[in-house]
Amino acid sequence: AGASTQAAASDIDARIDELVVPAPAILESTKTAAEAVAFLVASESVAEITYIFVVDAGRLVGVVGMRDIVLAKPGQRLAEIMVGEPFAFKSGTDIDAAVRAALARHYPVYPVVDDEGRLLGSVRGWQLFERVVVEVSGQAGAQVGVSREEQVTTPILSAFRMRHPWLQVNLLTAFVAAFVVGMFEDTITQIVALAAFLPVLAGQSGNTGCQALAITLRGLTLGQLDEYPVGKLLRKEILLGALNGFVVGIVAGVAMWLYASMSGEANAVMLGVVILVAMLGACTGSGIFGVVVPLTLKRFGADPAMASSIFLTTFTDILGMGLMLFLASWVLL
Amino acid sequence: AGASTQAAASDIDARIDELVVPAPAILESTKTAAEAVAFLVASESVAEITYIFVVDAGRLVGVVGMRDIVLAKPGQRLAEIMVGEPFAFKSGTDIDAAVRAALARHYPVYPVVDDEGRLLGSVRGWQLFERVVVEVSGQAGAQVGVSREEQVTTPILSAFRMRHPWLQVNLLTAFVAAFVVGMFEDTITQIVALAAFLPVLAGQSGNTGCQALAITLRGLTLGQLDEYPVGKLLRKEILLGALNGFVVGIVAGVAMWLYASMSGEANAVMLGVVILVAMLGACTGSGIFGVVVPLTLKRFGADPAMASSIFLTTFTDILGMGLMLFLASWVLL
Repeated sequence: AGASTQAAASDIDARIDELVVPAPAILESTKTAAEAVAFLVASESVAEITYIFVVDAGRLVGVVGMRDIVLAKPGQRLAEIMVGEPFAFKSGTDIDAAVRAALARHYPVYPVVDDEGRLLGSVRGWQLFERVVVEVSGQAGAQVGVSREEQVTTPILSAFRMRHPWLQVNLLTAFVAAFVVGMFEDTITQIVALAAFLPVLAGQSGNTGCQALAITLRGLTLGQLDEYPVGKLLRKEILLGALNGFVVGIVAGVAMWLYASMSGEANAVMLGVVILVAMLGACTGSGIFGVVVPLTLKRFGADPAMASSIFLTTFTDILGMGLMLFLASWVLL
Repeated sequence: AGASTQAAASDIDARIDELVVPAPAILESTKTAAEAVAFLVASESVAEITYIFVVDAGRLVGVVGMRDIVLAKPGQRLAEIMVGEPFAFKSGTDIDAAVRAALARHYPVYPVVDDEGRLLGSVRGWQLFERVVVEVSGQAGAQVGVSREEQVTTPILSAFRMRHPWLQVNLLTAFVAAFVVGMFEDTITQIVALAAFLPVLAGQSGNTGCQALAITLRGLTLGQLDEYPVGKLLRKEILLGALNGFVVGIVAGVAMWLYASMSGEANAVMLGVVILVAMLGACTGSGIFGVVVPLTLKRFGADPAMASSIFLTTFTDILGMGLMLFLASWVLL
């Protein structure tokens, strides 16, 4: 499976055609069950035959399973015992779309036809499933700007070309956060304890947001958001963010109070309260961003995972650090 | 598939037994092919029959496919035409282990037996595959402390109970980063432009590290690290980190130079160089952490993804911000 998995992932936006192999059993619909048995007995690749594809002048008209042959009378024609108008993939179908169709069907083998319905060959169901695993396994990386095409074996320069642009995007967004922090230089100069708490606010709101983001993306991947209302998810993540932000904020607030007291800052208690309120606000907002970022990417036709963590942490960095510095400036200066 | 997917994910460390359904076709090995056909014709659930499980006094001794029946002579006994000593799951097998075994085999149906080899029932291959998808789709969340059991539909209080402990762990690690920044309070007071670049260093080294982490986890998931040497991956990620850190560091260094010049800082050029060197060092280290963190978790028997991003960003935060502040203190003060 190792080699085929690698091949599968190297061109994830490929067509179904590249997985097509010749169908090992194709018979005319006028043949009888007895003739089908004779065909199977004579076939060298009988172990690979799951279905007999039934054709009329090359056009796929039905599928006969081994069970159908067993149950048929010897003289019955395939046209009588076949499952007619069988599900088939059209040539040129996007692998992604094929994978989604296969997820709902679970057939061991799928016929592939051209636009006129002529049988081109077949595709094994597990190969489509393997694609799902390869694709879904790329989701965590996609969030931080790793292409779904990249794997352990990707050469270093290809990896650099694919990853680097997103790091530049991340840098640009970091500059926005830096600009926000820079606006409060005076506040930091006067209350330098705030500098030490910049990573605390950024880290907590970022991780809280990434949790909401992960659950939203998982819901999209497993198709649960087709049924579960987005509004309900949003409310849940807002509440969760507030709850997590409040409890974490109390611990962080107490830590700031202790730290500021030891550093000899005036207003150590108020600084602790600032941290609590900023954490509560930032984590609540993180819940919103975690739901909204991937759904917005999807709305615009993009991969909902792609760089989602980069966009998310831009918002959470600005919200977390900005809120702390704004509140401290407002309340204490 | 939606409902079964949800059920599947609600208890990911379950046993194979809960997927077992009664086998629809069980016949003694002394029966003939003709008797098997008669059985199939009489069976009400013939559409669900993929294999006939062949038993001797309840013990599974073989498997007969529909194709074997078609190819058999009517008088042949099942013992003659069956595939003997078939692959079967033992009752109590961990779902995870079963899923891995299924990935390599791709059978449509698997028999399940007890310790004495008695047939208990069967499990459909696609249900095991669905587990893989559900499990792998939980990986991005696991990295930030979301349990693989949690999904969109998980009640808010359960989600809180599962996510919150990791947020407290994240807070603890953020305090370590805060402590490191706090050690350089004097430096920040004298060169306040450094405060604005804290999120830039933390953000870039964190994202660079998360990229390496994602590829390492993907390699573990797809089984590629069984063949690809870890040392080679480590060298690649160190080089990639250095390359990305150098290019990003130049942009960030120029930005610092401009920013510090405008803010009227002395040594604006040297500050730019400090940012470049810190970024180079931090991103190189991030490459190491991205490979080492998940492999260390795995070495200690833990889920290599679980909270990996929380641990990683602890290291990258300390390295990125600490290196910048240390270099600035050393070179400029």
